[in-house]
Amino acid sequence: MSDAVTDVTQVVRAFAECWNRHDMDAFSALFAPDAEFVNVVGLWWRGRQEIKSAHEVTHATMFKNSRLTISDVSVRFPVVNIAIARSRWVLEGHVSPEGSPLPARHGVLLNVLTKTSGGWSIIDSQNTDIIEGTLSRPQ
Amino acid sequence: MSDAVTDVTQVVRAFAECWNRHDMDAFSALFAPDAEFVNVVGLWWRGRQEIKSAHEVTHATMFKNSRLTISDVSVRFPVVNIAIARSRWVLEGHVSPEGSPLPARHGVLLNVLTKTSGGWSIIDSQNTDIIEGTLSRPQ
Repeated sequence: MSDAVTDVTQVVRAFAECWNRHDMDAFSALFAPDAEFVNVVGLWWRGRQEIKSAHEVTHATMFKNSRLTISDVSVRFPVVNIAIARSRWVLEGHVSPEGSPLPARHGVLLNVLTKTSGGWSIIDSQNTDIIEGTLSRPQ
Repeated sequence: MSDAVTDVTQVVRAFAECWNRHDMDAFSALFAPDAEFVNVVGLWWRGRQEIKSAHEVTHATMFKNSRLTISDVSVRFPVVNIAIARSRWVLEGHVSPEGSPLPARHGVLLNVLTKTSGGWSIIDSQNTDIIEGTLSRPQ
């Protein structure tokens, strides 16, 4: 792997490591100040502070003891200093708003990163749940 | 609006226009040959041909008479010649695999684009359904 692929993959893995420590200071530090994030239900957060606040709420409740495992990290560089990193994930140990255990969830996470003097930062994330057995979701 | 914002917004609007004509030749021509696309159920397509084939299947069936309306196009340029375009959408007129009419769906579409000599092309798309009334999806 090139150094750049290794460095970007490290940030994607840190996403899961910070999640699993439920350390939202370290988690949000992975993002640029003006980053955006769309979560699996289409909530659109603008800026590192909104991303942090939203995750603090869920990690105090439904994700408090959850564990995120990231795999299949695929990194592309459309230009120097911009990376598109897509990965699959499994989330386990999460609970419903009422506290009931829930089955494992699977999804696909897209991160777009830029390289600055301080290293690679996430400037955009979008997350999508995997729904098995269908070509699209007939709600 | 700057010329670049106008040009990128035009590609995002063309996504919906081609969808609504169910013209998958024109639709797939919006994408770079090595583009990737993750749809609302987490299917991960690699390359323009896979993106085209997958949409040909759904536009012959559940999306045959569907209409996509895109709004709130937000464009950022992390570097020159790379654009991150996020938009909201509504899909109407789609049917279940059995042909029954379905209610309108809402979502958030991310497109990453590059500018080449031929203009702006989509190099990555990820799509997420909006699920109202929840912070995350307690499957």
